[in-house]
Amino acid sequence: MTGTVYLVGAGPGDPELLTVKARRLLGEADAVLYDRLVHPEVLQYVRPGAFRQCVGKAPGGHGWSQEAINHELILMARRFAKVVRLKGGDPFLFGRGGEEAIALHDAGIRVEIVPGISSAWSAPALGAVPVTHRGVSAALMVVEGHDPDTMEWDILSKTEATLVLLMAMGNSPIIAAELVAHGRSGNTPAAVIERASYSDQRVVRTTLAQLATVIDKEQLSNPAVIVIGKVVDVLPPGLLSQLTSENPARFAL
Amino acid sequence: MTGTVYLVGAGPGDPELLTVKARRLLGEADAVLYDRLVHPEVLQYVRPGAFRQCVGKAPGGHGWSQEAINHELILMARRFAKVVRLKGGDPFLFGRGGEEAIALHDAGIRVEIVPGISSAWSAPALGAVPVTHRGVSAALMVVEGHDPDTMEWDILSKTEATLVLLMAMGNSPIIAAELVAHGRSGNTPAAVIERASYSDQRVVRTTLAQLATVIDKEQLSNPAVIVIGKVVDVLPPGLLSQLTSENPARFAL
Repeated sequence: MTGTVYLVGAGPGDPELLTVKARRLLGEADAVLYDRLVHPEVLQYVRPGAFRQCVGKAPGGHGWSQEAINHELILMARRFAKVVRLKGGDPFLFGRGGEEAIALHDAGIRVEIVPGISSAWSAPALGAVPVTHRGVSAALMVVEGHDPDTMEWDILSKTEATLVLLMAMGNSPIIAAELVAHGRSGNTPAAVIERASYSDQRVVRTTLAQLATVIDKEQLSNPAVIVIGKVVDVLPPGLLSQLTSENPARFAL
Repeated sequence: MTGTVYLVGAGPGDPELLTVKARRLLGEADAVLYDRLVHPEVLQYVRPGAFRQCVGKAPGGHGWSQEAINHELILMARRFAKVVRLKGGDPFLFGRGGEEAIALHDAGIRVEIVPGISSAWSAPALGAVPVTHRGVSAALMVVEGHDPDTMEWDILSKTEATLVLLMAMGNSPIIAAELVAHGRSGNTPAAVIERASYSDQRVVRTTLAQLATVIDKEQLSNPAVIVIGKVVDVLPPGLLSQLTSENPARFAL
């Protein structure tokens, strides 16, 4: 007997931002393999007695390699009928879900995808930034920032689309400088949303020119999402402060 | 007394792809105003006795105007403590959530944002297209296709990012032709995911050059999402067919 592996998105952090389906599967699974960034409170939904394993990749590459995770998933699927691979955000949006799905399929194991709430749009939303807004931005571009050599600077500088940068905190000085060097105005509004959906969420609004300085000064760090574009300032100040300071959407730790 | 309006994402269709929070709020709300594309099964979570109103905008502009919806939301918030505005997908990703939030705030009403699962990511995922994949695509661009005059053809044609087109079915011949005319190869893989997450979901894979012909031939129509890029073909054929033909992720009508 070989089981099914469910590649399940865990959302940005708040356990209430899991899907109904993800919560059901956690309660039914025989084994749950989860990311480092999945909050412990999410694991309360796991059936008592189910096998649990954190397969987190720590920053700097320590911890589980992708190959080791794939191997562990295959082993689990050969042992259990229902295996949940719980991934921060969404499995197919910078989640390596495709790689895991291929490895499992090659091993003859059935795979199912359960979409989750990616931080790419939920972190901006929880930071009171609508990624699109009529008359302001009708497109968005989501980019990883961990390897500036692969980034399309001309495209990123010239598009009118809202830019959402994930895994970009470490390279924020390079990214901001390249965008300005390629023609994006230093006055473009920018925001950093740190620990979106948690009780200690922080939102800092600035400009592209000031972005790296502000990140350093406020000591903002991962997990965080950077948004660049006019949408950052589209909501009126009173609404921004209501949404970002009083919003009980955030999950109390 | 003035109530709070919760701008809540309903996800792509399947009621299990609601968030836990959305489901809780539907059960608590005094009034629920919902989009035309929200599936009736989702409304089973609404508290018996709660006021319900469909404020759908039909294609072609018939039905409720955005102004009328804003006005209705304000009236409801003055009458009830807890009002849910249930929107297909995510409220801030082509959902006009920003406009509703501003109108409510201007009327002195408290607003809360509850992110949902947008079809921009989930429709490709449910059609077995990982929007990013290591070595294939490290970025994605999400664009509305209902007004080709506003589209950035140079950007869209030259970027290596995966393109996700929403509300683009009617203009697919223009869009495909412009992309090719601006330099994108006609051989670029493309997919259409129609009615993502429903039992009658259809996924059709083709090329950019054939896109409009295939949409016409297969009589694909809205709601549908178009994906363009190498990621369309990244999963092996056996896995594609398992994920798109056997996947019980889809909600039986």
